[in-house]
Amino acid sequence: MNIQKMADAAKAASTRLAATDGTLRDNALSVIAKALQENQSEIIAANQRDLENAQTESLSAPLLKRLKFDESKILETCEGLESLRRLPDPVGGTLSATELDQGLELYKVSCPIGVIGVIFESRPDALVQISSLCLKSGNAVLLKGGREAAHTNKTLAALITTAAKRAGIPDGWIGLMETRTDVQELLGLDHTIDLIIPRGSNAFVKHIMDNTSIPVLGHADGICHVYVDKEADLEMAIRITVDSKCQYVSVCNAAETLLVHADVAQDFLPGIQAALAARNVEIRGCPQTAQHIDVIPATEIDWQTEYLDHVLSIKIVPGLGQAIDHINRYGSGHTDVIVSQNKQRADNFTRLVDTANVMLNCSSRFSDGFRYGLGAEVGISTNKIHARGPVGMEGLMIYQWRLKGNGHIVSDYTGPGSKPFTHKPIQ
Amino acid sequence: MNIQKMADAAKAASTRLAATDGTLRDNALSVIAKALQENQSEIIAANQRDLENAQTESLSAPLLKRLKFDESKILETCEGLESLRRLPDPVGGTLSATELDQGLELYKVSCPIGVIGVIFESRPDALVQISSLCLKSGNAVLLKGGREAAHTNKTLAALITTAAKRAGIPDGWIGLMETRTDVQELLGLDHTIDLIIPRGSNAFVKHIMDNTSIPVLGHADGICHVYVDKEADLEMAIRITVDSKCQYVSVCNAAETLLVHADVAQDFLPGIQAALAARNVEIRGCPQTAQHIDVIPATEIDWQTEYLDHVLSIKIVPGLGQAIDHINRYGSGHTDVIVSQNKQRADNFTRLVDTANVMLNCSSRFSDGFRYGLGAEVGISTNKIHARGPVGMEGLMIYQWRLKGNGHIVSDYTGPGSKPFTHKPIQ
Repeated sequence: MNIQKMADAAKAASTRLAATDGTLRDNALSVIAKALQENQSEIIAANQRDLENAQTESLSAPLLKRLKFDESKILETCEGLESLRRLPDPVGGTLSATELDQGLELYKVSCPIGVIGVIFESRPDALVQISSLCLKSGNAVLLKGGREAAHTNKTLAALITTAAKRAGIPDGWIGLMETRTDVQELLGLDHTIDLIIPRGSNAFVKHIMDNTSIPVLGHADGICHVYVDKEADLEMAIRITVDSKCQYVSVCNAAETLLVHADVAQDFLPGIQAALAARNVEIRGCPQTAQHIDVIPATEIDWQTEYLDHVLSIKIVPGLGQAIDHINRYGSGHTDVIVSQNKQRADNFTRLVDTANVMLNCSSRFSDGFRYGLGAEVGISTNKIHARGPVGMEGLMIYQWRLKGNGHIVSDYTGPGSKPFTHKPIQ
Repeated sequence: MNIQKMADAAKAASTRLAATDGTLRDNALSVIAKALQENQSEIIAANQRDLENAQTESLSAPLLKRLKFDESKILETCEGLESLRRLPDPVGGTLSATELDQGLELYKVSCPIGVIGVIFESRPDALVQISSLCLKSGNAVLLKGGREAAHTNKTLAALITTAAKRAGIPDGWIGLMETRTDVQELLGLDHTIDLIIPRGSNAFVKHIMDNTSIPVLGHADGICHVYVDKEADLEMAIRITVDSKCQYVSVCNAAETLLVHADVAQDFLPGIQAALAARNVEIRGCPQTAQHIDVIPATEIDWQTEYLDHVLSIKIVPGLGQAIDHINRYGSGHTDVIVSQNKQRADNFTRLVDTANVMLNCSSRFSDGFRYGLGAEVGISTNKIHARGPVGMEGLMIYQWRLKGNGHIVSDYTGPGSKPFTHKPIQ
């Protein structure tokens, strides 16, 4: 299908979908779950084809594991649909209500953004999660999954399309893109697509951001820091550094640089060196670090690098201010940690570090929608507008102003003898 | 001054400004007001030079009036500063608070966006309003006013800079750009500038939007519609149409197209024709309109045109659905009106029209920050993310996640025997 046509259909569907009752959308989620369970064998057969292709292409074991979509994964995905169904309807909530004058009432009402483009990795469950989040929130969606999952995605999208239609959801609300050329075309549709959510490698997200004028919700780099203050509990600092670096090295909220206050360098560095050595982490250090422990010399490039690997750079800083400056200069505004027992110093760090997630005495790895309790996670954003940090369903919502009058005109409220506005909150 | 340097200074100032207490920022607003009043003669002298230049360039009377900045305008501007000072501090508000586990507490806290670039028309009071809004909300700002007001703006910016510095605001938080080349340079600083707010002509705003990857808050077109339903009070429909079209023709929320339900065309059209003729409005009509009243034939171009003038296009539609389709196709998502006594039909219109402001039985001209009671207006946005419609100070705010623990690490919450999250709201 032509992408422009698919997008036009999604836009047409989006206004009608936005006007549906929450019960209709919730019921559709149940119908979709039922369809997935009833057509398990078809899904598993399609997934089998993807897995066979992946094996001939010698995909790595972790990627194969994420690609696999078997009976238990289908069940888990359907449970996810059920818990999404139970969340309150995000559409149509009154965010504020003001009487402007007698009989002239202003309401600010939550509504879907419109048409969302989502590009995601080779995990078939992601297709179900993303499309169901969009459906729940009244948004139309164009999806592009990793090509390794092409057969599974095609089967899942077809089942979801049919089930949603049967449940009364307007046709065209979901579209599956299949090639990179499709995505390239999508990036140009700035009159039709309201928001793009890219997931995947940093290079890929950066490519998307650089090649569209459509707003993008996401993050490219995740250069996260742990700063060990002069008033840190050093045992705690070791535990937090190791967790931030090693708990899962290949993700955006893993730490890449450790900043250490000069006053505690001598006490802290040997301990953290031993702890990191036990986890096979390579250390690259600044010249002062090298005076305390044996390290590979760090260069300017290290402070700018998201290793996503068992590598950590260490820099000794003379004070809190320099730690903050380093983070504001080299960080990506994702997640940054201070370890300190001094409340005032922790507060200063918190208020001065320009980052989406600031952690006091806990691991950078906590910055995540599930851990934050946001319910379903749409993505993690390093944007400074709309939504920042882990983003739940509210990232798919905007609002509309609705003014209800009874023949009110502006001429009556301007010039000499004009009527005043009351601007009273409506309870 | 070099724009990159000015932007770097603003970025450096922005993190420190974000960490200031509200009382410091409020006090600075008072100091600025005092400085403007104490240096009235200097301001008026600078303005006089601008006015003289403008006269030799034969600026139109309305533009001259907007450019003029005399004693009474200075007083009014200072009163504006005072009322801004009295508004609650938007920085540091707790938007949500959740216990993730014992001793692990998550706070979502409002904070400034960072560095805002604002380009505005030749109204000196706009410079004061915008810079004070940014100061109140803890944002650094780079400003570019219309060149006709260059001398006045330079004087005002210098007075504000000095006064704010005296009040303890970090240096560099405000910068004045002076040329179009400066603005062009600004558009490329996507690592430093967080948001651009362009005000001015549609062509200008569109130029900005098309030439930067920095998020833009604003609106290019304002193609607003009035739809007169078959169940409309036709007297009311005339009043609302005339006000929406004529109350101020050259603004974005003035109506450009009138859609009339076929069932009431015969009764309604002669009356609206007479009312519009009395206000010297030229009517361009579709072929069916021409069967009822004498009109210039409308072409496809008319439905796409924001006249900003005493011209109105009229189209007869067979039903509510076609009115909605027309608006969703040709409208700019700014402000659209339905006149109807039927609640169900009004609700359908409201829910199906994809627009920032939907008006029931009242004029399109009400969509405005002052009339909505938002306090200070930052601008009007037709964006679908971040902020939509008239935008108050909240459009300059975002939030930061702050997680406070006591040595908590993610390893304890994953794998077999992992601790559960509590996810309890903190009261």
